[in-house]
Amino acid sequence: MVYYVLKELGLSYEVVQSSSEEIKTPEYLATKHPFGKIPSLNDDGFQLYETRAIVRYLVNKYQGTKTSTVLIPSDVQKAALVEQFISVETSYYTGPLFKIVKPLALKKHKGIEPDLKSVNESREELEKTLDVYEKLLEGKDYLTGEFSLADLLHVPLTFFAFSAGEGDLWNKRPNVSRWWKNISERESWKNIFTEYNLAQYATK
Amino acid sequence: MVYYVLKELGLSYEVVQSSSEEIKTPEYLATKHPFGKIPSLNDDGFQLYETRAIVRYLVNKYQGTKTSTVLIPSDVQKAALVEQFISVETSYYTGPLFKIVKPLALKKHKGIEPDLKSVNESREELEKTLDVYEKLLEGKDYLTGEFSLADLLHVPLTFFAFSAGEGDLWNKRPNVSRWWKNISERESWKNIFTEYNLAQYATK
Repeated sequence: MVYYVLKELGLSYEVVQSSSEEIKTPEYLATKHPFGKIPSLNDDGFQLYETRAIVRYLVNKYQGTKTSTVLIPSDVQKAALVEQFISVETSYYTGPLFKIVKPLALKKHKGIEPDLKSVNESREELEKTLDVYEKLLEGKDYLTGEFSLADLLHVPLTFFAFSAGEGDLWNKRPNVSRWWKNISERESWKNIFTEYNLAQYATK
Repeated sequence: MVYYVLKELGLSYEVVQSSSEEIKTPEYLATKHPFGKIPSLNDDGFQLYETRAIVRYLVNKYQGTKTSTVLIPSDVQKAALVEQFISVETSYYTGPLFKIVKPLALKKHKGIEPDLKSVNESREELEKTLDVYEKLLEGKDYLTGEFSLADLLHVPLTFFAFSAGEGDLWNKRPNVSRWWKNISERESWKNIFTEYNLAQYATK
């Protein structure tokens, strides 16, 4: 997510990987992220954690300096609609989607059998959300009408859902399907795809 | 939450109550909130939904016009820290707290017996979060050092937790307890308390 924003803004960066053990060490908790999560950002000495805070900061500080991509418009009403759809994503989309993708990934990579009842319930919840998206995206290429941070935040986890063979949820809804094409075929996402070899996750 | 922000910013407003049936009607879904939730805002014809989007919009548009309260500072790094703690609240605080408060409220008002195992698990999760808060608030009056939207967003649900008799979780941690005093004893919250007769919920 942060990589994708960095690419869209045309910023250079250095990645420091932290293992699942490292992020629980007292040093990491004290200096990087007190809840022991990734990612955290160090921008010239300024430390920040939590993905959505990091990406808003990068946009507020660097948008327009290297590329012309607008992720949060300066107009206060347009910016409010971006925030509205970021909240929609957090409240109704990512929750159930994560509960589908995570168990399927654990099965694939660690052989752990998923709780199918829970996966199916989450799928039903996501179907309802996507039905609303189908209406919201009627006649629009993006959630607010123009590409924004709200669209972008949907991409990584949805990509993993497609990789897990769940793409039909998007493909069977014409507006949602068109929207997914628009946001997943951007140059910066393709670059991330190549750079981080995301093809290795694509099973279908 | 929105009321509290409106008060802090010194804005006048009119409340239109919607019943739990109304918010599921096609008209409400089409014009107010497509996911059938409250609240939604109509600001001189501009429609917006989702609490966190509404409050950011009100701050961006009206902060400093009626009162001197600063909920999101203009400095980009200070604003980023506010967003960091809003994300902390969303990711680690409100989730488990809601799973404690909701069943206890349902028991009190509708006599529905809570799933105590689930309540206890959420309480354990919240204890861990509050342990981190206790460290984060060492030597600080507020999460970022100064009162902000991040602190404010914690208030309503925490108030209901105290009403449900869960106040010890905050009171037993000196820094958290001091912080709670600071954010819950503000004039604007006291006004809401009186205006909406919140004392009726206070059982302990």
